[in-house]
Amino acid sequence: MSDPFAEIVELLTIVPEGNEEAVDAVREHDAQLTKPPGSLGKLEGLVEWLARWQGKSKPTLASPMVAIFAGNHGVTDQGVSAFPREVTRQMVANFTEGGAAISQICALHEFNLRVFELALEQPTGDITLTAAMDDKTCAATIAYGMEAIAGGPDCLAIGEMGIGNTTIAAAICAALYGGSGVDWVGRGTGVNDEGLRRKAEAVDRALARHKDALGDPMKILARLGGREIAAMLGALVAARHQKTPVLVDGFVATSAAVIAHAVNPAAIDHCIFAHVSAEQAHRQMLSKMGVTPLLDLGMRLGEGSGAALGMVMVKTALHLHTHMATFASAGVSNKD
Amino acid sequence: MSDPFAEIVELLTIVPEGNEEAVDAVREHDAQLTKPPGSLGKLEGLVEWLARWQGKSKPTLASPMVAIFAGNHGVTDQGVSAFPREVTRQMVANFTEGGAAISQICALHEFNLRVFELALEQPTGDITLTAAMDDKTCAATIAYGMEAIAGGPDCLAIGEMGIGNTTIAAAICAALYGGSGVDWVGRGTGVNDEGLRRKAEAVDRALARHKDALGDPMKILARLGGREIAAMLGALVAARHQKTPVLVDGFVATSAAVIAHAVNPAAIDHCIFAHVSAEQAHRQMLSKMGVTPLLDLGMRLGEGSGAALGMVMVKTALHLHTHMATFASAGVSNKD
Repeated sequence: MSDPFAEIVELLTIVPEGNEEAVDAVREHDAQLTKPPGSLGKLEGLVEWLARWQGKSKPTLASPMVAIFAGNHGVTDQGVSAFPREVTRQMVANFTEGGAAISQICALHEFNLRVFELALEQPTGDITLTAAMDDKTCAATIAYGMEAIAGGPDCLAIGEMGIGNTTIAAAICAALYGGSGVDWVGRGTGVNDEGLRRKAEAVDRALARHKDALGDPMKILARLGGREIAAMLGALVAARHQKTPVLVDGFVATSAAVIAHAVNPAAIDHCIFAHVSAEQAHRQMLSKMGVTPLLDLGMRLGEGSGAALGMVMVKTALHLHTHMATFASAGVSNKD
Repeated sequence: MSDPFAEIVELLTIVPEGNEEAVDAVREHDAQLTKPPGSLGKLEGLVEWLARWQGKSKPTLASPMVAIFAGNHGVTDQGVSAFPREVTRQMVANFTEGGAAISQICALHEFNLRVFELALEQPTGDITLTAAMDDKTCAATIAYGMEAIAGGPDCLAIGEMGIGNTTIAAAICAALYGGSGVDWVGRGTGVNDEGLRRKAEAVDRALARHKDALGDPMKILARLGGREIAAMLGALVAARHQKTPVLVDGFVATSAAVIAHAVNPAAIDHCIFAHVSAEQAHRQMLSKMGVTPLLDLGMRLGEGSGAALGMVMVKTALHLHTHMATFASAGVSNKD
């Protein structure tokens, strides 16, 4: 029987390198701009990042896309969310109709918003009782995520919607990094103390139920994950192979990146973690991967909102790089 | 003889309160938006801040202004900057012609950029030898800063340009908060170790020279300050009295706020410190005032660039508050 994860594991393992010549070209131009070297801090790094992963000495942001993947979760039967499951579908409609935060960030800053719903009427299995997905479904959902962004954006922000999915992300982290439920769950959309206790217990029961499968990142994804997380993993990897730099949103989106990172740490080198969420374990998750978030605004909304704010910074940084005067053109004296 | 600082001290001492009813109205509307309460983190706080200090239950960003004040400094004779003094004037031209970073942030995000130059051909006195300004000049420059923004913006970002002015800001901090030059100077536009040593020594000599005057914040400003810092102080205070919330830029702009804070801590309650600069002492300065910066992007450019990025966050936050759907309008189920 063939391994349904063979293709994705290969794509995660053999990843294209960044283009350091493009980065050098960006640095050379940057050095001529009318500002002290390094004075735009992380904004300069964002332009280098675009160049490195686009492989362009003149990086672009002509087709920035925010992709939101939405899924439903059987684990909501365990009372792990403050909102009912139907909110996932309702919010998908709200994204499209322009009423959601992400819709309005994209409208204001002119990002292309794409929403991909993943069998919302078929929630994944309740991970406290059974596998979230069988391996074939998981692999097919990863492939869907790859296809979703094929040929598309020159910069991609990934985010998600799925009532119950902070419990799912916590379970993935506990499986990969150790610890128990209480170390990884948080208040999500706003559960009370009782709900928080239920989340931790649900994670613990899921870990016990699936303990035979926790040695393999792809198995962890299938057993404990969710469709939107599998699809984000696919999008993230496909982006790497089509030279699209990726901005990763918060706690749940990052749980797709930790799967990639567990297979091959270099597989996420093209990702910027746009913000650190107020969801308590996100900081710990980023630290496990050795990455630093761009923004820290106490947000915990999901739906790609933090990644889209990161994209605003990227857009601004690239605009400066492209439009600022040089010392020569502006007649400004350079450093002595 | 009348005290030239009597008016400004009174304006700093008797300051209008924020409008908490406007904040309550904003919170009431926010609670209806299609997101978990609190999930937009600091973005929600930015809208409340606009409401509180504009005194409007429906805050606006119809006339956002970035005001840059430019001055020259006699202390540059001490070799404290990596760039020659004429760069101040050259950069003022660059701001206006659209070549500077701040010009392009404002162009991209549609902020009104105003540049106020302050007697660039008459640098202030070299503070290691004499007073930067006499009291009357200082008071007049504060008044100029007040006038500069009169009747103008509904939100103000303040920034500056002035070769040598990180030394000036360091001297103000050392005078107000104690410590010596080495505790407060940093690399500014990029001095080497030798330059850094010269900066620390210049501050120490200035502190010794003016030790008779260091008990009074306004005297500190006149003796050790600069025209752009005096003007920013004026702008900051005038803004409070005309219900304009203020975004303060980095290390040098904050040195205007510390003067205000030293006279009356409540005088800066309408200010958001938009970012923490890579200039080493900025974090310490913010901590002395007990304020937390919005962004931390390793920037150290000045010219209002960090404050303008803060304004981008304010614009985005207000756009969300104004344009998002409510649970009722979008047909989304609210928290159980």
